[in-house]
Amino acid sequence: QNKARLLISCTDKPGIVAAISTFLHEHGANIVESNQYTTHPDEGTFFIRIEFAASDMKEKEETFQEGFKEIAAQFHMKWRLTFLYKLKNMAIFVSKELHCLRELLYEWESGGLMADIPLVISNHKEGKELVESFGIPFYHIPASKEIRHEVEEEQLKLLKEYDIDVIVLARYMQILTPHFVSTHPSKIINIHHSFLPAFIGANPHKRAHKRGVKLIGATCHYVTDDLDEGPIIEQDVIRVDHRNHIDDLKKKGRLIERTVLNRGVKWDLEDRVIVHQNKTIVL
Amino acid sequence: QNKARLLISCTDKPGIVAAISTFLHEHGANIVESNQYTTHPDEGTFFIRIEFAASDMKEKEETFQEGFKEIAAQFHMKWRLTFLYKLKNMAIFVSKELHCLRELLYEWESGGLMADIPLVISNHKEGKELVESFGIPFYHIPASKEIRHEVEEEQLKLLKEYDIDVIVLARYMQILTPHFVSTHPSKIINIHHSFLPAFIGANPHKRAHKRGVKLIGATCHYVTDDLDEGPIIEQDVIRVDHRNHIDDLKKKGRLIERTVLNRGVKWDLEDRVIVHQNKTIVL
Amino acid sequence: QNKARLLISCTDKPGIVAAISTFLHEHGANIVESNQYTTHPDEGTFFIRIEFAASDMKEKEETFQEGFKEIAAQFHMKWRLTFLYKLKNMAIFVSKELHCLRELLYEWESGGLMADIPLVISNHKEGKELVESFGIPFYHIPASKEIRHEVEEEQLKLLKEYDIDVIVLARYMQILTPHFVSTHPSKIINIHHSFLPAFIGANPHKRAHKRGVKLIGATCHYVTDDLDEGPIIEQDVIRVDHRNHIDDLKKKGRLIERTVLNRGVKWDLEDRVIVHQNKTIVL
Amino acid sequence: QNKARLLISCTDKPGIVAAISTFLHEHGANIVESNQYTTHPDEGTFFIRIEFAASDMKEKEETFQEGFKEIAAQFHMKWRLTFLYKLKNMAIFVSKELHCLRELLYEWESGGLMADIPLVISNHKEGKELVESFGIPFYHIPASKEIRHEVEEEQLKLLKEYDIDVIVLARYMQILTPHFVSTHPSKIINIHHSFLPAFIGANPHKRAHKRGVKLIGATCHYVTDDLDEGPIIEQDVIRVDHRNHIDDLKKKGRLIERTVLNRGVKWDLEDRVIVHQNKTIVL
Repeated sequence: QNKARLLISCTDKPGIVAAISTFLHEHGANIVESNQYTTHPDEGTFFIRIEFAASDMKEKEETFQEGFKEIAAQFHMKWRLTFLYKLKNMAIFVSKELHCLRELLYEWESGGLMADIPLVISNHKEGKELVESFGIPFYHIPASKEIRHEVEEEQLKLLKEYDIDVIVLARYMQILTPHFVSTHPSKIINIHHSFLPAFIGANPHKRAHKRGVKLIGATCHYVTDDLDEGPIIEQDVIRVDHRNHIDDLKKKGRLIERTVLNRGVKWDLEDRVIVHQNKTIVL
Repeated sequence: QNKARLLISCTDKPGIVAAISTFLHEHGANIVESNQYTTHPDEGTFFIRIEFAASDMKEKEETFQEGFKEIAAQFHMKWRLTFLYKLKNMAIFVSKELHCLRELLYEWESGGLMADIPLVISNHKEGKELVESFGIPFYHIPASKEIRHEVEEEQLKLLKEYDIDVIVLARYMQILTPHFVSTHPSKIINIHHSFLPAFIGANPHKRAHKRGVKLIGATCHYVTDDLDEGPIIEQDVIRVDHRNHIDDLKKKGRLIERTVLNRGVKWDLEDRVIVHQNKTIVL
Repeated sequence: QNKARLLISCTDKPGIVAAISTFLHEHGANIVESNQYTTHPDEGTFFIRIEFAASDMKEKEETFQEGFKEIAAQFHMKWRLTFLYKLKNMAIFVSKELHCLRELLYEWESGGLMADIPLVISNHKEGKELVESFGIPFYHIPASKEIRHEVEEEQLKLLKEYDIDVIVLARYMQILTPHFVSTHPSKIINIHHSFLPAFIGANPHKRAHKRGVKLIGATCHYVTDDLDEGPIIEQDVIRVDHRNHIDDLKKKGRLIERTVLNRGVKWDLEDRVIVHQNKTIVL
Repeated sequence: QNKARLLISCTDKPGIVAAISTFLHEHGANIVESNQYTTHPDEGTFFIRIEFAASDMKEKEETFQEGFKEIAAQFHMKWRLTFLYKLKNMAIFVSKELHCLRELLYEWESGGLMADIPLVISNHKEGKELVESFGIPFYHIPASKEIRHEVEEEQLKLLKEYDIDVIVLARYMQILTPHFVSTHPSKIINIHHSFLPAFIGANPHKRAHKRGVKLIGATCHYVTDDLDEGPIIEQDVIRVDHRNHIDDLKKKGRLIERTVLNRGVKWDLEDRVIVHQNKTIVL
């Protein structure tokens, strides 16, 4: 496809949009969709997502990448320029519960997730058959607290080997070390089975049942070193009532977990999400 | 109206529904709507809400009240029998923010809340004009931590004088003492401006903004001695995004607060809510 | 399981609940959940769903079935008594699009749909591999207007052979003849990819796109001879916007179609749905 | 406030954003928020909404208005440039049902609708007290089919006198003539009490009840000569069930009508809505 996307954040100043759009125009690109947001008219932070088209985009890739460096330097931008013809590489981590993995695979198969999925890693064997039926290699790496270091080394080796851009924890029930997290900042997406910050940590459905809430939720967020405290990408809820036991909450929860994770991953792959001060801007 | 409602909870045993329905049938009543729920088939707790009609209900009131005592004793029931021709007396407490009060008054005026509203009590003067435009007495009782005891004595005197059945805290920003709460167990309804248990306590919108949540909520619950920990009657949420500042959350929150409070109060007045172990059964 | 369910409708009269509950009590059954609704206090129609438990239910099945006939006759009831130990037999019909089939199969596998699925019938081959991976026989019966009669004969033979109770049209793109429909009244569940009665008939997404609606929906209904006019079991909607082309509506629609169909089928299998005058009562 | 908004549509061409943003930059303006959408990369239609800030905006108003004409001419733009210091003038038309009027007035009072409301016009007297309690003139102009022409002349005179920009039909139960509509193209906002195109025309709740739908809706749209066929700005739905009679649908409908109308009016006042081929682009 002859499309590319620019995702930028920087301190706001007059003239940024003019500089970007003039640059794109001069290089034969046409802006297809753009969304801009500034936190405050004076001295705020500027965010923009631009999707643009150009004929022979592949040949022009380096020209755009190199040429934009100058503007980026001038405005001290944090930026990312991605080309749609190059699919991102996404790895999925999973444990025993497969509903989120399944949803991602089907969405992917039906063209809803623009990425390659070169591998799935699991600390259990449950997902093997499902994953391989999609022609995707499945790596079974048993994990536990005691061997966390070795396990992560093996995982990181695979991620490097497959040149992974995005890691999705699709109900992967192991805690990642700060070292692992630091290797992929804002690149690890998790789904938590509660409406954060309610029921942070373990057993959210059990605690939701005990508290007698009337809605349960799910939260898709980037992983940071603080468990369940990373920037939230998306959340949603589903209605429950007094008749629902903990097992019913788990079942109902699955629908909302897979829906929310799917939406969050989709937005990330479409370069819609910018992390800013432990929050996300979704453009 | 020739209708009445039975709301019952007790330890489950075979034969309860047969006993109740035979009693009603023998006294010329016809069941219009009934909902029953038992927590567990063996030795669970039994809950039922029955709405029944009978000609000359007013004349039969005492017969029903007296007659049912026997069945209630037999099954050790907690029960309540209310007659629709007798409206409940509802008091509303409010402070400066009037959106919840306003919603209740309009819903009441358009026939959506089956109750009398003999008075509104406020620690501020803001609501006076609005309340009096509905022909309802408005009592301005300034309040503060220091004079809490005296204030509550004055309030309790009014509640007694007007024979109040239900108290609605429509964004009343004072904490009630355990003494006050103990005078009206499961009869004081509050609206909290967050999706409890997230953002329990003060300034939920500020904290929601800081955490970067993608939905904000409201929770309608009965007041107990533990602040924001009482049985939840109803909850709902509304979508927010990165563009919303704290003030925007407050504005959006108002819609969901008044909607949720209105629904919770309506269900309570319709005798749909049973409190059981710090949770509610809504039938 | 030692549970059974009674689903009843009849002209309302005093004493129905008393008669039913006394019968159940005398036969050693304990009511676990019951929901009753009457359209009007005087001369309305009475509807009830009762779930009850009894030890040795299997042995008592005939006693209950036979014994209840007397009460049913007395009140001229339409009724159904089902025993949970006997799973219903559900057939799924599908064409090329598999999202609804897939959702049903996974929900079924994870214990959310209480039924056996002895076969899937399709006029295309697309679903074969998926269906067989669940160990379910897949029958490929090509269909077209011209051979409708022969096709339906073959389908009906299979339905009889497998003793089918419920037929789910999971995006089956052929119209059924009145004869076929008459063989399974209120037993064929369809999913229509619009919020009926909007966009009745073909190409709802195309027409929704043309009209510029801001929500698209799905409707789960029983099939009658009037296309898309049968009693509605469940509906829901999802938000769309100006950026969504017809293909986007189709993709978004899939999520809501499978969710709504799944909910409707679940309620039907749990004996929650009564058809009354081209509408449903969901208890 | 030192802010203004540009709302533009035109045939897409390379260089539009560059031209606009360079113009704004050269005139000392800083873009605060912008959203752009193009229907198709090649030869599509281009839409943009830009909110920008500049010191001394009031003094620069004419410079911006005049200066932009050149760019607009170059790209054959349909455009609108509005300055936030100048509030729009909004007239509200109402009949007997006041819930939508009330919601608009309260939202306006609490700062949620950026407009002046110089008058309310009604064919009934019901709203008089409410409207005047906000200090807004209330014009009672009785209307009927027979005197439609005279009534509209009187209304148009008032709209001219008060220099009205936007007309909101807040459940105004009279049909407007093509002549009236033509005087304010894409400037008359209506709320229809159904999820259009379902239940177009009269008595939508009665027909929704008859059809047995499980959700009822409301649609906010611009008025055109085709009744209920104008471009849709916003829609939403609320859940109903078999227990709800027509009156219940009406009551539940009110909540969704006032919420949807309020949202649609707010977006229009914020210059977020562009009409394009009988649809809306909401930026």
